[in-house]
Amino acid sequence: MKELLEQLVRECAPYTQQGQLANYIPELSKADPRAIGVHIITADGQHSGAGRDQERFTIQSIVKPILLLLALMDNGMEFVRGRVGVEATGKPFDAINSSDQRLDSEHLNPMVNMGAIAMCTLIHGDTYREKFERLLALTRKLAGDESIGVDEAVYLSEQSHGSKNRALAYMLKSHGMLHDNVEDVLDCYFRACSISVTCENLANIGYTLAHQGQIPGSGEQVFPAHFARYVNAILTTCGMYDGSGEFAIRVGVPAKSGVGGGIMAVVPSRMGIGIFAPALDAKGNSVAGTCMLEKLSSHLNLSIF
Amino acid sequence: MKELLEQLVRECAPYTQQGQLANYIPELSKADPRAIGVHIITADGQHSGAGRDQERFTIQSIVKPILLLLALMDNGMEFVRGRVGVEATGKPFDAINSSDQRLDSEHLNPMVNMGAIAMCTLIHGDTYREKFERLLALTRKLAGDESIGVDEAVYLSEQSHGSKNRALAYMLKSHGMLHDNVEDVLDCYFRACSISVTCENLANIGYTLAHQGQIPGSGEQVFPAHFARYVNAILTTCGMYDGSGEFAIRVGVPAKSGVGGGIMAVVPSRMGIGIFAPALDAKGNSVAGTCMLEKLSSHLNLSIF
Amino acid sequence: MKELLEQLVRECAPYTQQGQLANYIPELSKADPRAIGVHIITADGQHSGAGRDQERFTIQSIVKPILLLLALMDNGMEFVRGRVGVEATGKPFDAINSSDQRLDSEHLNPMVNMGAIAMCTLIHGDTYREKFERLLALTRKLAGDESIGVDEAVYLSEQSHGSKNRALAYMLKSHGMLHDNVEDVLDCYFRACSISVTCENLANIGYTLAHQGQIPGSGEQVFPAHFARYVNAILTTCGMYDGSGEFAIRVGVPAKSGVGGGIMAVVPSRMGIGIFAPALDAKGNSVAGTCMLEKLSSHLNLSIF
Amino acid sequence: MKELLEQLVRECAPYTQQGQLANYIPELSKADPRAIGVHIITADGQHSGAGRDQERFTIQSIVKPILLLLALMDNGMEFVRGRVGVEATGKPFDAINSSDQRLDSEHLNPMVNMGAIAMCTLIHGDTYREKFERLLALTRKLAGDESIGVDEAVYLSEQSHGSKNRALAYMLKSHGMLHDNVEDVLDCYFRACSISVTCENLANIGYTLAHQGQIPGSGEQVFPAHFARYVNAILTTCGMYDGSGEFAIRVGVPAKSGVGGGIMAVVPSRMGIGIFAPALDAKGNSVAGTCMLEKLSSHLNLSIF
Repeated sequence: MKELLEQLVRECAPYTQQGQLANYIPELSKADPRAIGVHIITADGQHSGAGRDQERFTIQSIVKPILLLLALMDNGMEFVRGRVGVEATGKPFDAINSSDQRLDSEHLNPMVNMGAIAMCTLIHGDTYREKFERLLALTRKLAGDESIGVDEAVYLSEQSHGSKNRALAYMLKSHGMLHDNVEDVLDCYFRACSISVTCENLANIGYTLAHQGQIPGSGEQVFPAHFARYVNAILTTCGMYDGSGEFAIRVGVPAKSGVGGGIMAVVPSRMGIGIFAPALDAKGNSVAGTCMLEKLSSHLNLSIF
Repeated sequence: MKELLEQLVRECAPYTQQGQLANYIPELSKADPRAIGVHIITADGQHSGAGRDQERFTIQSIVKPILLLLALMDNGMEFVRGRVGVEATGKPFDAINSSDQRLDSEHLNPMVNMGAIAMCTLIHGDTYREKFERLLALTRKLAGDESIGVDEAVYLSEQSHGSKNRALAYMLKSHGMLHDNVEDVLDCYFRACSISVTCENLANIGYTLAHQGQIPGSGEQVFPAHFARYVNAILTTCGMYDGSGEFAIRVGVPAKSGVGGGIMAVVPSRMGIGIFAPALDAKGNSVAGTCMLEKLSSHLNLSIF
Repeated sequence: MKELLEQLVRECAPYTQQGQLANYIPELSKADPRAIGVHIITADGQHSGAGRDQERFTIQSIVKPILLLLALMDNGMEFVRGRVGVEATGKPFDAINSSDQRLDSEHLNPMVNMGAIAMCTLIHGDTYREKFERLLALTRKLAGDESIGVDEAVYLSEQSHGSKNRALAYMLKSHGMLHDNVEDVLDCYFRACSISVTCENLANIGYTLAHQGQIPGSGEQVFPAHFARYVNAILTTCGMYDGSGEFAIRVGVPAKSGVGGGIMAVVPSRMGIGIFAPALDAKGNSVAGTCMLEKLSSHLNLSIF
Repeated sequence: MKELLEQLVRECAPYTQQGQLANYIPELSKADPRAIGVHIITADGQHSGAGRDQERFTIQSIVKPILLLLALMDNGMEFVRGRVGVEATGKPFDAINSSDQRLDSEHLNPMVNMGAIAMCTLIHGDTYREKFERLLALTRKLAGDESIGVDEAVYLSEQSHGSKNRALAYMLKSHGMLHDNVEDVLDCYFRACSISVTCENLANIGYTLAHQGQIPGSGEQVFPAHFARYVNAILTTCGMYDGSGEFAIRVGVPAKSGVGGGIMAVVPSRMGIGIFAPALDAKGNSVAGTCMLEKLSSHLNLSIF
């Protein structure tokens, strides 16, 4: 397996030149656009890695499935489902407008920013700091890495360039779907996006989603099997932004990408995969990362379809 | 004229029962839904009024044409036109969305909230407090009433129920169309909406727009004639929310309504009209006020078409 | 006046080079892009023209106000208003979609194609051929020119390149707003757009709208005054496509343009104006024609605002 | 297995009372709303059925994956992918509009009507009758039933109530994505939707998609494995209309529903399932059918996630 991964890294490294670093916040544009790494944990708990799979980068949108998991663990499926919709086909709600168009929970999706902000409000905790600490604790547990923390520079950069997320949060508030202080909620969300992880961390998280809630090694059941299916289903339809349909055809496994350059992929019953390659395509997905996943899926017959 | 106005008040008073008070902020729902008043200033400077034409209410969206005027006076037509569009047909920009749709100045309009917030940033002044003071001074000048001030209760209510406007302002900021502190800009905007006026005040403002910038009595030219045409043109296409087309047919004069129940109408070269009747139709326009204007237009042949 | 018009033609002729001929149907791209002409009829019935004001071109969208007039004459305001909306602000109805979104009469507007097609169905007549003949008769009457006919080459070109209008008509039918045979309705519509007129013809039509239904010369009242106001109001808000707001500011009179290069302008109580200059701007309006109207409005103080 | 299916039919039969028959064409509203049937073929080729699993009903949208398969078989993945997009997240293109908005192949999806009409044009054949005959032949082959034909009454009803599909087809034509005669293309599409099938037929088709192109029994490879993955991926993201996300969570297998009351479900490597229960929920999916699939998935652990 390690040889296969090293071959993938060699073959896909040139694709890093076809993408661009995210630049909506200055900190992200400081990454090395040529970086590439991959880490896999197979069903038997074996680890394999290649490239820069121990390098830290910010989790960004890959925290969304963890936010969703924690919201499910704290509230159950029915409650979460009633507050944040699950359709991908949905109207990219033509929302903010001089006239008062309706915006309701069915227009939200846990994998887009507005839905993810709404999920922050569902996590238990007396304060948003406490909610975040619980999210960080779950992330550490799933990743099997107690050293995981927040990249403060990215967090501050998110805070100071967060106008769009502020707009989305106030939109939720104006439609009665967010009741707390907007800056408190966003502080939790910005911290969540700034959690710093490695490919190995993502592979661990993916493994647990692939094994219906069991963490590698101990086999401890962190969450019920049906929560894993809930998350994996949504990752399949919406995990790769506007490239989710294309990814389902080319790769065929639940996955989530982040603008930090990471991808977490879930091969149900088989493996967890963590990817890092921060040069992104026009849809916000890692170019070389998608390349590696496509080749890996083809070699190992990973598609669930 | 006074008899005609009194007759209109009698005939249209029953229509106050067909509308509803605005309730998006608690303060507005404290108005008397049966209130009705009208005040007119004719070309010769004669005043006539009927009903509760000396009662104060908040100007709300009727401040938008004054904001536009001040932005024009401070920056000229070309500059303002380049920053805030003038089309009514425009796409109700499908703006806030997970994907990054384009939002540019052509999608703004001075008569809808996002455009009006953008105009606050165009007004000259070292601080937003100073910008507001200049707006208040112009309002007093146009209204011929130095006693005009802010309704503090409404202002505080706007501040604490302003999520939608906050969303709009952060949206502008995230698209590079607002650079200052959002709360400073909104404070100016919320104060502007909370300016307290009477029907007579609105009639004075309408008169000056009808007479190409000259104020009644002294005939002082407060702003150039082409600014009046700019404002009157936009009032005609967009002044009455989604009822502007219907109003153009039924009444046929430039006008602006506010959710406080006011309407300011401009009969070019002929008269300024101020209306108050806070029971609103589904589009946010005063029911009895529109009724009075329709009858008045028919009696006096006011339509510009 | 004639000298003024000749000066305008000289000054604005260079602007013909800044536009493009319409090319959605091959026939229209055969026009001379440098052509320019203007014709005016003043309140006293005096005619003045300059440039190619006697040249024939197809009326295209300028037939829409005539369609609206005939629909009003046949059915009255209330009936027409109930079937075709009048708002410009309206949602550019996100209509054709896999899910069944609602499309109702409020989303229509007499000045856009779907609304104009709907108006064809409202005109009286046992057949669509008869409806068209009645429309042609009204056009001749308003234009004071019994020789007006259809440009057969343009009509055939419209017929064979009419997919978009066919889509719009079937859309109306699928929403229950068109009950007759779609090809019959479209045949009427395509013929209507292919009526061949001169600047002088348009000036006559504009004069009658400016004089509340009275035709120049005889003073015969062809339709009631309130129909003229209805049409002029809609021309002001929607007559110049997505450039209507800009046109209201720069020129300030009700007007309708067509992709054949014509503009009909209405100066209430004062004059009718016909323009021809087929090089169009990006919004579909004659570049040199708008230039002439702007200068004319400025010279003669024509703005209604 | 048969006992399990009979139990499911008993348990879910009451849910037929919670739905409505499709009524957009009169013929469909003649079905028995209480009908319910299910048929399954397992990996070993064993058949089991319960309820009215041998009753014929029209395939409707379930023909879309077969259309897609034939388009892929005739043209290859790259060609088809270039002409019809695969995203579910896509903008429900705000297409038909007075202004000329862009509509391109990325806005299409094989599982919505406009995309399916576009796929009809991609199928090989000298005439649309021939294209349809090839589609029917493939359907018979996949279903293992040479007796499959068209329900003429439904076909005629589709033809005479097809305004919406006509609008969609002319829309394609006006955007250069359909070049042939619209009525010819639609005739093929209407016939395709009117193909008459049983639950057993659908189970056979589902089996072949589940087994990467191999038909039950003979094991003949009808199409390459990667076409099955292409189709199954799209079924997962878009097969159940606006209920696809919900279905992925509750059931978790690729599936396609039709307004005739059928559902074809694909359990990769394991089974093909055919369902019939024509009472539909608000999103157009069989209520009792979804109920049976949810229970079946839970009992047999069918979810791919």
